[in-house]
Amino acid sequence: MQDLKILQQQIERELDQLQVSHSPDSLYEPIRYFLSIGGKRIRPILVLLATRLFGNKREDVINQALAVELFHNFTLVHDDIMDNAPLRRGIQTIHEKWNPSQAILSGDVLMIVAYQYLMRTHAQYYEALMTSFNKMAIEVCEGQQMDMDFENRSDVSIPEYIEMIRLKTSVLLGCALEIGAIISDASEADKKNIYDFGVNIGLAFQIQDDILDVYADADKFGKQVGGDIISNKKTWLYLTARRQANETQQAVFEAQMNNDRHPEKVQIIRDLYDDLQVRQSAEAEMRGYYEQAMEHLKSISVDTADKRELIVLADYLMGREV
Amino acid sequence: MQDLKILQQQIERELDQLQVSHSPDSLYEPIRYFLSIGGKRIRPILVLLATRLFGNKREDVINQALAVELFHNFTLVHDDIMDNAPLRRGIQTIHEKWNPSQAILSGDVLMIVAYQYLMRTHAQYYEALMTSFNKMAIEVCEGQQMDMDFENRSDVSIPEYIEMIRLKTSVLLGCALEIGAIISDASEADKKNIYDFGVNIGLAFQIQDDILDVYADADKFGKQVGGDIISNKKTWLYLTARRQANETQQAVFEAQMNNDRHPEKVQIIRDLYDDLQVRQSAEAEMRGYYEQAMEHLKSISVDTADKRELIVLADYLMGREV
Repeated sequence: MQDLKILQQQIERELDQLQVSHSPDSLYEPIRYFLSIGGKRIRPILVLLATRLFGNKREDVINQALAVELFHNFTLVHDDIMDNAPLRRGIQTIHEKWNPSQAILSGDVLMIVAYQYLMRTHAQYYEALMTSFNKMAIEVCEGQQMDMDFENRSDVSIPEYIEMIRLKTSVLLGCALEIGAIISDASEADKKNIYDFGVNIGLAFQIQDDILDVYADADKFGKQVGGDIISNKKTWLYLTARRQANETQQAVFEAQMNNDRHPEKVQIIRDLYDDLQVRQSAEAEMRGYYEQAMEHLKSISVDTADKRELIVLADYLMGREV
Repeated sequence: MQDLKILQQQIERELDQLQVSHSPDSLYEPIRYFLSIGGKRIRPILVLLATRLFGNKREDVINQALAVELFHNFTLVHDDIMDNAPLRRGIQTIHEKWNPSQAILSGDVLMIVAYQYLMRTHAQYYEALMTSFNKMAIEVCEGQQMDMDFENRSDVSIPEYIEMIRLKTSVLLGCALEIGAIISDASEADKKNIYDFGVNIGLAFQIQDDILDVYADADKFGKQVGGDIISNKKTWLYLTARRQANETQQAVFEAQMNNDRHPEKVQIIRDLYDDLQVRQSAEAEMRGYYEQAMEHLKSISVDTADKRELIVLADYLMGREV
């Protein structure tokens, strides 16, 4: 998708020129810093592509695209504090480079600025935009809390896990697309379908992320392969494996929880996953969500040819780059 | 003001019945806990009184009153983390009772729920409400950052201090009143005047708070008398005293910065304040803002008799209870 780079560059340019205050600098410098460290900018691009899909009626759509990206960055800044993450994209996080107080406050301001940009459109859209955005915003916080709760629980079920990733990551993709549909005067049915397309792509993407964490090619994967295994993260693969393991295999799992020889631990758990064929199950699950997403896209009442961009973006996200 | 208690009870009841989700409980329990620990509920009452002043046109004004109180509670939850405060109103803070991550997230949700309640009115008010609320929200964060910055600075000027307290505490009072005016279809001039009334009352109130911290009757004061002196806080009194002190007095100030015999330190600094007559200067400053507030109130185009409630509330805030 050649166009993707152009869209990404547009978002970078807009973020660079973002109209935020400069005083006090101790508040706005971390914000400018964080917005400049880059990213795939998928969420604002989803807003832009959804408006294109429905006929590109508003030139000021960039404002709502920025609102979504600003909100996403608010969640990243606060999540980094909660996760005690020293780095993001290889660069120091705000709480690490400055301090947690400045990270809390600059996250708060990012959220408020997101609301400001969301409203930079015709007043007729305010109600629908705010309803969609507020619901999503609360759900993302709920998902983050569930994710933290899961760390201390040993009885997390697969449906609970799916609900957590739906809230924490997928509804924001759905909302980004829905926002594009709202400001393009799409029908209720189309708004619902494009939202569900986004949510299902999000679920497929997250399960693929769980798979890649274990099975990715170390050279191509941006993060440490096996990171989830090392940190005992309750991913789709882990939860499925624990459900299917026999007594002997359960004992191996238990024994490995506290193994701090990391390469060995990753190898042993990966072997268990292979024995239990959880990679295949995860891939089937992922394909299921991907196909559901495509069903929703198919149901949208615009020409099939116009849907091509969204399929290309979805495939790019799923690593099926064409 | 007999009516004040009735209004406070109404707000308590509404907060108690607030429509927030229950799942995950680890997110919503801290929110319910924090909203139940009470407070004077001055800000939502300002919204209600402003709508009364302008003819009480909307029955659903309680929603905007709650929005303001929810936003205020968001700032308290996050400020408590930044200030490392173990207690609020004698009760454990969220980050202390649970942990900082849950405090960050429940603060975030309080802010989003505030936006939800703000929008529970006729769509014709959305634009004005969001413009006023977003501006205030960002300013409050700027004020908090300035307050933190001041801790590490020795060159804070009086105008900077006034700007900090204007942003950190006063604009929220102004915005609460302005919101009441917006949903009552008040004129632009009246909206401006009631906002300025609130901001000036806020400034007067904060300077009085600085005075009380040093000179309050220990039996009647809710907090430790001299707390600002012990923590070397750069209050109006401190900054004014440092500006006016001669060389000998400066040396005493410097020497006391690290004195951890607290009763002695409070006594010595209070004596310096007395010698420099900063209490009298602060009281004059406070009266100046109070009078400015009353000028703005006087300019509002409604019957003088109808302004009585707001004067009573202002006097209650200033401890001139009648």
